[in-house]
Amino acid sequence: MQERNIALKLMYVGTAYHGWQVQKNAVSVAETLEKALSTVVCHPVKCTGAGRTDAGVHAEVYIANFHTRSSIPTDRIPLAVNTRLPDDIVVVKATEVPEHFNAIGSCLRKEYTYRIYNSRLGNAFYVNRAWFYPKHLDESIMQRAADCFVGTHDFSAVRAVGTEVRSPVRTVHYFNITRTGDLIECRVCANGFLYNMVRAMVGTCVYAAEGKFAPEDVSAILESRNRTAAGPTVPPGGLYMTQLWYDEDVL
Amino acid sequence: MQERNIALKLMYVGTAYHGWQVQKNAVSVAETLEKALSTVVCHPVKCTGAGRTDAGVHAEVYIANFHTRSSIPTDRIPLAVNTRLPDDIVVVKATEVPEHFNAIGSCLRKEYTYRIYNSRLGNAFYVNRAWFYPKHLDESIMQRAADCFVGTHDFSAVRAVGTEVRSPVRTVHYFNITRTGDLIECRVCANGFLYNMVRAMVGTCVYAAEGKFAPEDVSAILESRNRTAAGPTVPPGGLYMTQLWYDEDVL
Repeated sequence: MQERNIALKLMYVGTAYHGWQVQKNAVSVAETLEKALSTVVCHPVKCTGAGRTDAGVHAEVYIANFHTRSSIPTDRIPLAVNTRLPDDIVVVKATEVPEHFNAIGSCLRKEYTYRIYNSRLGNAFYVNRAWFYPKHLDESIMQRAADCFVGTHDFSAVRAVGTEVRSPVRTVHYFNITRTGDLIECRVCANGFLYNMVRAMVGTCVYAAEGKFAPEDVSAILESRNRTAAGPTVPPGGLYMTQLWYDEDVL
Repeated sequence: MQERNIALKLMYVGTAYHGWQVQKNAVSVAETLEKALSTVVCHPVKCTGAGRTDAGVHAEVYIANFHTRSSIPTDRIPLAVNTRLPDDIVVVKATEVPEHFNAIGSCLRKEYTYRIYNSRLGNAFYVNRAWFYPKHLDESIMQRAADCFVGTHDFSAVRAVGTEVRSPVRTVHYFNITRTGDLIECRVCANGFLYNMVRAMVGTCVYAAEGKFAPEDVSAILESRNRTAAGPTVPPGGLYMTQLWYDEDVL
């Protein structure tokens, strides 16, 4: 059998995992998926994921790809692997893709959504699914702060200190903050994200809503490239990968 | 301080609990709430709940009441008790009610909602929150079966075998089955429910949709008062208490 490159569309609740990435001494989504896939295709499997997600972060949509010489029909893979996966990871589609396809390298843009449950009292159904923030947040002020992040910038002020990447420049396509009842949703789309960038941007919008600085100051904070000038990194349980864009029809 | 009767409006995710009711050797919602309340009011507390819920069943809305001689202002109780409760139980309102008020005896009607995730593949976000049913269900057939339950009937055919209550006659006010994408919601309202009645009625609607009997046969099944003629008791994780009605302003 010719080697095939297979893209998997999946979703997962990240609460029980130490993020996507395989690590020592901690269960990751990738490792759990690779184990299940290995028993389906009868050889060890290495998966490439669309991006790192931290411990406790969720994915409504996620793309991973792997290579196999197995003869299993592509459309049989989701059901076969799901029976071997825990319920909090579900493969919803498998697509054969060209050899050069790579879940992270071929990704054109990504959307993350950060959810805040903003009510004086908590909500049992959002535990580990949204960040509970009891003080009222004015989402229109948050939006004015979020607007400062849109466009092409050096995002050093909102990336985890001590992380190194080739370039801290990214393009944010949109950053929309909406409220439905007690739930605030922050949807941000970019060509790529630095480590902790979404959670630090949301923390900065929350600081603006709290009056720690004016929402328009966020432009200067971003220009300062100083992580300590921006807001805090908010907790992981409110963060979801929600959309991905590829040239290939993998979604 | 005069003894007061306090009604609490709360919500809980039932996954971690053996139902509402206090039992030996298993953690119940009532016991967890009573422990937290006791430390707030500084004396042992007994709560009366709006109804039994089984292990794994949730409540978007639930009413309980208790008596206290504590001087704590009523509107301070929710926050005070929430800081002592696990995150999966949240008290959202406290109301002083007349001495004769009783969360179960004063309840005029209740609505339960049963959720079915009906798609060939599962959904990680609905684990323990909906029943995953991979075969397609026609909700219009389910509705025709559900219609047979509406009205005043002897519901012996859909109550747990071996349970005894004064009378098996109840009045179902409505039983509406709707689909939104892959999620089927079965909303049923009655003046009271027998043990396992909602889950057995939903199982009967599913059996009708599967063609095990015609939906119109459900009337004869109900008249037979024979539990084995009806459908199975579906799993608890899809069941939610969703609405309650009282003459008092406790909601």
